[in-house]
Amino acid sequence: MDFLEFMKYYQIRCEDLMKDFIEKKAPSFPSRLSEAMAYALFAGGKRLRPLLVYGAGTLYQVPHELLDPLAMAVEFIHTYSLIHDDLPAMDDDDLRRGRPACHIAYDEATAILAGDALQCLAFEALSESQSVLPPKIQLEIIHRLAVSIGQRGMALGQMLDLIASDAFMEVEALNRIHELKTGALIQTSLIMGAKANPSVFSEDISYLEEVGYWLGLGFQIRDDLLDVTGTTEQLGKPQGSDHLNEKITYPVLMGMEAAEAQAHFCFQQAENALKKINGNTHMLHSLGEYLIIRDK
Amino acid sequence: MDFLEFMKYYQIRCEDLMKDFIEKKAPSFPSRLSEAMAYALFAGGKRLRPLLVYGAGTLYQVPHELLDPLAMAVEFIHTYSLIHDDLPAMDDDDLRRGRPACHIAYDEATAILAGDALQCLAFEALSESQSVLPPKIQLEIIHRLAVSIGQRGMALGQMLDLIASDAFMEVEALNRIHELKTGALIQTSLIMGAKANPSVFSEDISYLEEVGYWLGLGFQIRDDLLDVTGTTEQLGKPQGSDHLNEKITYPVLMGMEAAEAQAHFCFQQAENALKKINGNTHMLHSLGEYLIIRDK
Repeated sequence: MDFLEFMKYYQIRCEDLMKDFIEKKAPSFPSRLSEAMAYALFAGGKRLRPLLVYGAGTLYQVPHELLDPLAMAVEFIHTYSLIHDDLPAMDDDDLRRGRPACHIAYDEATAILAGDALQCLAFEALSESQSVLPPKIQLEIIHRLAVSIGQRGMALGQMLDLIASDAFMEVEALNRIHELKTGALIQTSLIMGAKANPSVFSEDISYLEEVGYWLGLGFQIRDDLLDVTGTTEQLGKPQGSDHLNEKITYPVLMGMEAAEAQAHFCFQQAENALKKINGNTHMLHSLGEYLIIRDK
Repeated sequence: MDFLEFMKYYQIRCEDLMKDFIEKKAPSFPSRLSEAMAYALFAGGKRLRPLLVYGAGTLYQVPHELLDPLAMAVEFIHTYSLIHDDLPAMDDDDLRRGRPACHIAYDEATAILAGDALQCLAFEALSESQSVLPPKIQLEIIHRLAVSIGQRGMALGQMLDLIASDAFMEVEALNRIHELKTGALIQTSLIMGAKANPSVFSEDISYLEEVGYWLGLGFQIRDDLLDVTGTTEQLGKPQGSDHLNEKITYPVLMGMEAAEAQAHFCFQQAENALKKINGNTHMLHSLGEYLIIRDK
């Protein structure tokens, strides 16, 4: 399978799995809540985090059936975080992936609850008893995810981002925000995929932590750059919205050229870490390229 | 231990455990997010759900060390749900337990994130590797909790409650809301405590489901009654706020006297279910009394 086939195959696989899962787990009567969850979930996302799960898992020969719940879980978490980030009290974004944000299509209360319910849906997926993963591994994966999205991870990143928006900032502080807000879940997606093989080496886990760190940072820098250079259509949200919201971004802090160089530096660092791993890292390499060097 | 000693002992135990846990799990630097989580968590709650965990667990001779993470988890979840329920987009309550609600003491964004982070903190507590519970049981407990608070449980209950607030309603529909919004987590607290003994009979689990169902309903009816008869000081929120918010409550639907009778009926039903269980159900009996027959 080449990279484009890999991407396409797992995007569709994850999409189908989530559709089945959401339907199976919804209440038996029509529910505004489940509708809003599905609205946010099936909005044409690229499923990058599931791809990272599959990418890391296949590197360690994990059968993809074992990776499926993991892939769904990270996408449920990512979607919940987007719904809550878009809320008026947070980043106040009306558009997401070219469509009205969840709180616009529904309302704020429904959006808050849809995010809440997607969060626990992730833990539901990870704790299903029919999983063929050893229970101890399932628990490790659950623990890793719970830690990485909470008060020391993703939620903290969003908090720091909100506090920071109108203050003077240095690159280190911006790195710290994105390490938590974006990086933590990207790292965790890789680690979850790898841990699904119980005999993965602990050194490999720490290499993957490094890979994830640099991918997360590079991905965010690219995102900031695209907000300046992309079109509204490409972005699925108004071009220049970071600027409009007076968001502190890498281009703002260091200029376009230096930010572009920094993105490439991140990719290089991810590559270096990846090289320390024995095995076929081709898909992860291409995924990194896709995350950081992409132009839309 | 008599009931008051039991209650006092486990309230303090749970309080201390949560303080330790929150401190241990907070980031190493001062964080507005962790502060807001602690603010909401340590506001003098009665720790009823942890008491249900300990009550059901001790009925099945589970050592309380094994119940501690379970007790914390249900209180983290309960606190997260209160924070989100109080938000302006939801029930818009400024007071909680006699103090400014989390979004008033901090702000809406912080409150949303504090709730989010408390949710995953529950799953972090339940998946800790040092637990002496068998991993399979840990997973079962995680799964049960995840299911009961999501799109078929607590979150759905809150959604139905919000949609219903200005519509005509029958008692059955109100029961349904409270079965989900309040009852699901109360049932789950009992089930989690019992399941911590791997050899608990499946019949007992279904009796406890029944007990939890009636306790949840009776507890909610009592809550509605107290909103009419209690003082603002007793309630920790303005007396009559349900009426002010045009909330549909049991007293509104059936009158005070019938609602009072219904509360006692619920308690009796819980008692009947409890009697089917072999063992010392004294603490659960007293807890039920405390939940439903209390006067503040």
